[in-house]
Amino acid sequence: MAEFEVTMKSLYAIGVDLGGTNLRVGVIRDDGHVEADAAVPVGTEKSADRIASLIGEHVALMQNQTSLPLTGCGCGIPGIVDSDRGIVFNSPNFPDWQDVPILKLLEKSITLPLLIDNDANMFALAELLFGAGKGRHNLIMLTLGSGIGGGIVIDGKVFHGDRGFAGEVGHIVVEPDGVPCGCKSHGCWEQYAAGRAFTHLVHRLPKHEREAVLAEVYGDANQLSPELIASLAGRGNTIAKELWRSYGRYLGIGIASLINVLGITTIVIGGGIARSWDYFIDACRAEIMSRTYHKNVVQLKLLPASLGENTGIVGAASAMFQRRP
Amino acid sequence: MAEFEVTMKSLYAIGVDLGGTNLRVGVIRDDGHVEADAAVPVGTEKSADRIASLIGEHVALMQNQTSLPLTGCGCGIPGIVDSDRGIVFNSPNFPDWQDVPILKLLEKSITLPLLIDNDANMFALAELLFGAGKGRHNLIMLTLGSGIGGGIVIDGKVFHGDRGFAGEVGHIVVEPDGVPCGCKSHGCWEQYAAGRAFTHLVHRLPKHEREAVLAEVYGDANQLSPELIASLAGRGNTIAKELWRSYGRYLGIGIASLINVLGITTIVIGGGIARSWDYFIDACRAEIMSRTYHKNVVQLKLLPASLGENTGIVGAASAMFQRRP
Repeated sequence: MAEFEVTMKSLYAIGVDLGGTNLRVGVIRDDGHVEADAAVPVGTEKSADRIASLIGEHVALMQNQTSLPLTGCGCGIPGIVDSDRGIVFNSPNFPDWQDVPILKLLEKSITLPLLIDNDANMFALAELLFGAGKGRHNLIMLTLGSGIGGGIVIDGKVFHGDRGFAGEVGHIVVEPDGVPCGCKSHGCWEQYAAGRAFTHLVHRLPKHEREAVLAEVYGDANQLSPELIASLAGRGNTIAKELWRSYGRYLGIGIASLINVLGITTIVIGGGIARSWDYFIDACRAEIMSRTYHKNVVQLKLLPASLGENTGIVGAASAMFQRRP
Repeated sequence: MAEFEVTMKSLYAIGVDLGGTNLRVGVIRDDGHVEADAAVPVGTEKSADRIASLIGEHVALMQNQTSLPLTGCGCGIPGIVDSDRGIVFNSPNFPDWQDVPILKLLEKSITLPLLIDNDANMFALAELLFGAGKGRHNLIMLTLGSGIGGGIVIDGKVFHGDRGFAGEVGHIVVEPDGVPCGCKSHGCWEQYAAGRAFTHLVHRLPKHEREAVLAEVYGDANQLSPELIASLAGRGNTIAKELWRSYGRYLGIGIASLINVLGITTIVIGGGIARSWDYFIDACRAEIMSRTYHKNVVQLKLLPASLGENTGIVGAASAMFQRRP
């Protein structure tokens, strides 16, 4: 048998994570290692043309700074994204964007093979490959912020549904006659388990408890951010702790529905609200266990996201590695 | 170039559809054609051993009656089924079955290659390949009976989730503080959009309307079956028609959540209650449209199941064709 040398060459790609405030760009190795990364403010002029130029400029800077061979560039974008056609239908962070052909705009300045996808999908892929969900085949990723971002990974690949709309989990109906949502429906999960949850949940408290909490914010329920309630709970406020349990209960209600539909029991939870993990997770878990078939959730894993600020760029580059022929 | 003859040989398999009342067995061609079929009553002795023998006996009869070469035998079974391990965790139609190794029991008498799956999954596969969803890649199948059976097909294959529990859609939470469900949770979708829906929905009517409907059933809300309300609506009863619109609204609430999660917009609806299609479908559609992103549902298809009583055996055989190497 002839001797020969097996060389396993690493691959590299650029990952882009566009947020409402910051743009992150990095060079990622195919084992998830971040070779280089940078963050720049997005600024106030948020037209699609300007943002596409900004991305192009910083991708070029990254390319110029590295001598590594690059497979391509993956971009995670907040909003409803048709990955196949390269279109952003809309975006909570860029309200003027409507049916923006962002892939075409990016191709004006980026010559690398390009792909785009919803940012939550990129987070989900990164957590499955290199983070909290490592070693699993299927995963549901939830990002708890002003809304609930969702990403579903099936057999190691992001699941998009018919046309890119899979994972809009924030709009699961949890209260048929509930409060209005920005999506024009009402009673959506993200009204009860994301940024505005406490504004709504406080109204369910007995009057004297409600007044006690509102006194802390000078009577304005709209000020009841997760950060504020976490801060109150941290100072030992029992009403704040009870509000977090209500929050956990609603988080669990939606997760139970996801588990009953998808039969996926690895749930990775990130986003700012996940920092208050200890305040809500027990109530969340109890609600899930009471609403799912016990043999289904025997291996339930509720896991905090583990990759931090680089999740988006790692996931975006990973999507590129998966796409290459 | 040498001349040769291309012969596309058809494949054949046995499909089994086990119901709570009848067992259906058939010989199916790989284009969905039913070559032969038979139905027998299940009888009252419903132990797993007895049912496995009954299936084996009728599969053998089918084998003896056909000269066609058989690829294998697929069995659809009502309940929560671990297809990979061949286990039925439980079954609404066979209450004594707990963790039954049905595949092993069937192998005692069936020598063909065998597979089992949840019956709703078999229905879903059949409707995608040969029925209402023909030509699609993805499909959600709902069977509206005493509960809501669910089957999810992704890229032409039944989706099972981590361990066979995908598609338990009847237990999506639609009313967090709602009525108890047989699964020990409460407020499950199937309490409001399956066999017992009207028993619950009647309590939401104004008192005089409720009394008028209950007078028709001698005061017993438990008698308000879908058949009865359909019969009343058929006679022009406006309260019964309003109850069907409430039913349609709840059906739409759950479907909207499924669409938001899965991004799949081909929904095939079967089961006995689907026969009252015209009474509920407009309210159902309106609810879906108000709770989903408009670009997602632009191609919404709400389709009645089209394969009739042979759906189960066609789907079961099709699963066998898909599995063969």
